[in-house]
Order: sequence, then C-alpha cells, then structure tokens
Amino acid sequence: MLPIISIVGKSGSGKTTLLEKLIAELKQRGFRVGIIKHSEKFELDTEQKDSWRFSRVGSDVVAISSPAKVAVIRNVERDLSPQEISAFVGMGCDIILTEGFKKSRTPKIEVHRKEQGGGLLCPPAQLLAVVTDEPLEVPIPQFSRDDIKPLADLVEANVRAQAKEERVELLINDTAVQVSPYVQDLISRTLVAMTLGLRGADNINSVQISLRKEA
Amino acid sequence: MLPIISIVGKSGSGKTTLLEKLIAELKQRGFRVGIIKHSEKFELDTEQKDSWRFSRVGSDVVAISSPAKVAVIRNVERDLSPQEISAFVGMGCDIILTEGFKKSRTPKIEVHRKEQGGGLLCPPAQLLAVVTDEPLEVPIPQFSRDDIKPLADLVEANVRAQAKEERVELLINDTAVQVSPYVQDLISRTLVAMTLGLRGADNINSVQISLRKEA
Repeated sequence: MLPIISIVGKSGSGKTTLLEKLIAELKQRGFRVGIIKHSEKFELDTEQKDSWRFSRVGSDVVAISSPAKVAVIRNVERDLSPQEISAFVGMGCDIILTEGFKKSRTPKIEVHRKEQGGGLLCPPAQLLAVVTDEPLEVPIPQFSRDDIKPLADLVEANVRAQAKEERVELLINDTAVQVSPYVQDLISRTLVAMTLGLRGADNINSVQISLRKEA
Repeated sequence: MLPIISIVGKSGSGKTTLLEKLIAELKQRGFRVGIIKHSEKFELDTEQKDSWRFSRVGSDVVAISSPAKVAVIRNVERDLSPQEISAFVGMGCDIILTEGFKKSRTPKIEVHRKEQGGGLLCPPAQLLAVVTDEPLEVPIPQFSRDDIKPLADLVEANVRAQAKEERVELLINDTAVQVSPYVQDLISRTLVAMTLGLRGADNINSVQISLRKEA
C-alpha cells in the first residue's frame, strides 16, 4: 500500500502553499510524489470537449495523451477515498500527499492560521503534527510554516514506517526473473492493492498468484 | 493485455463522430469502454490551477477527485504508446478504443472521406476495416458511416480474439481464494501489463508471483 499523508486545514489556512514547499523538499530527497486533491467539479479546457462527448455516450474512462503529460479521467459514482484513488495514482510514486480529505483515515498534518480563529479541524489524536503560527495546547509536534526540513523529516519517518519491508519473487514462463527493488516495490503494491478488497481487510502477509494462458 | 483498437483517419474525416456511435453501441452490448486520444497540449480549467502549482514544484502525478469523476494527470517525458497508456486506463474497462495513433501497432479501422481526396493513411494490410463514403479498391471490409452494428460486430470479434483465455489462481496468506471471472481478468491483465516490460516481449504464457512481508 502506497504511503499516504493528508494535509488538512480550513479553507485559506495555507494548505496549497505548504504542499508546494513539502513537494519540493521531498522531491529533493529523491521521493517521487503524487498529489490527490478534491474538487467539487472540474473540466478539461474547451480544446478537450471531445472527452465530454465520449463520456456522454457512455465511455467509462477517457485518456488524453500529450508529449508532456497523460490525463486519465474516470467516471465515478461517489467521492472516492484517498486509498481508492491511490490505486489509480500508484505507479511511479513513492508517497502520496493529499490536500484536504479531513475525514479520511490516513495520517494527517493540520495547517492552522491564528487569524482564522477557533481550534483545530481534526482531533489532535488523529494528527501527526500541526503547522501553526501560534502555539497550541495540544500534545503533538508543532511546526512553523518555514520549518519545512523538520516537517519533511517527520513525513519521511512516517512514510518509512508505513512501507513495511516486503519480498517479491517472480517467475515468467516458469523461469525466475531478477527484479530490481523498484520493480519489487511496484509489484508488491499492485498485488496488495488488487487483493485488499477481496478480503475486506488490510491484514495481508503473503500473496501468491499464478497466471497461465490456455493458448 | 486489454484489447485495443485504433480509429485512425485524416483530420476532419469523422473519427470522433464514429467513435461516439461505436462507444454507444458497444456500451449497449455490455462492454466497458475506455478511450485514448492524443492532444498536443491540454490544461485543466483555471479553477484547477493548483495542479499546475504542484506539478511545477516537482509532483509526478496529480489526482483531482470529484463526486462524478477522478482525473489523474501524470508527467511524462515523451509521447507514450496506446499500450503504455492502457496500463493507466485498464482498471474497469473491457476494451480500449483510440482516436488516432496511426503509427501504433494496434489493430486499426480507418475513416475515409471522399471529399478530402487522396488514398488511405495506413497500408491496407494494417487495417481491420475502412469506414468510407466511396468504394475503395482495397481487399478489406468496407462500411458506411451508418453501418454501426456490423462494424461493432467486427470490433467485438477482434476483442474476443485479442482476449485469449487465461487462468488465474490466487492464494492470500497461503489460503486459496476463489476469484470471479471479472477479478481473474483484472489480475491477469495487471500481471501481464506489469511484467511485459521486464522481458521486452509480448510472449508471456505464464506468470507466477509470490509476495511475502517481512513484518
């Protein structure tokens, strides 16, 4: 399962700016970072109205490919959780940060701004840390908006704790294939993500899959 | 591997309109259809400029979630092939149709319009069929723009031929788990897509993977 950490806070508290700094710092440390954000409604620009035409007549997924990026737009029937979305994002990332999703069960960091008044959005017991411009009486680590390196240290430690060590063996056409740690990681995440729902639990210690084509 | 069929043709030949009709017909036959189209450049609308901010500071993937759809935007370094893109699209589809990608090695259907002049874009040997408003002297099936049902029959037959029968066995925590044909299919496609690149060939007859966590 890909490690996920949610950056939560009231609207205007500075989540996006903090995320920008955190992404840049984690990127510099060699992590590949994926972002999940929530939006009530979004559209691709008018040049892309074809994707709307396809969707209207019943296509379930529309992908748009350019030399610089690939967008995949999937119809869904409800708001998905960060864990569900991460299954679409996973490939090519080491960590996923979300903007918002304050009700999700992912580890969270709350951004707090004094001038907005009131207390925290989330119960402190659900928070890894608070990023705040005033001292708060809560028993969790507190950082200022400029403490990016120590905050990234905390994120990194949590990511490493979430990513338990796993071991993958692969045979193709009955021959063992050496796989790099990167590919081991990819396979492991995919298998766990793919099989989690089958058991309704996150208690997977081993998975073995055999696929054989009947030509 | 998810079956892919490309709808190719000159700009203005009517690819998008044909795709719309074909999607609606295939949808009615119970297929879940994914679309891949090419674009030189695209942007999410201005409400979504955050995704640009994240991408600029180094995020590799940005996902935007709404109650109706989820968009996943991935930075890439070159134009990807339909096969590569299908790895991101796969989940939840039975067939992928592409608009364009005339150079790809997927089966193709070309849309031809008399008033545009000239011959076909692709060598007839690469085409499953032509959709045309004039008879062409090529030894492949020809359909008019309104022959959607027979064209969908051809697509359906090709999809069934591409999806060879496969057999999947799954053990979780050393216990065999019964999996539905749908999940077998999902697992099989994922494993083949995931391992294809490792061998640089499409000649995979069996895959076995064992994953064990070292707690």
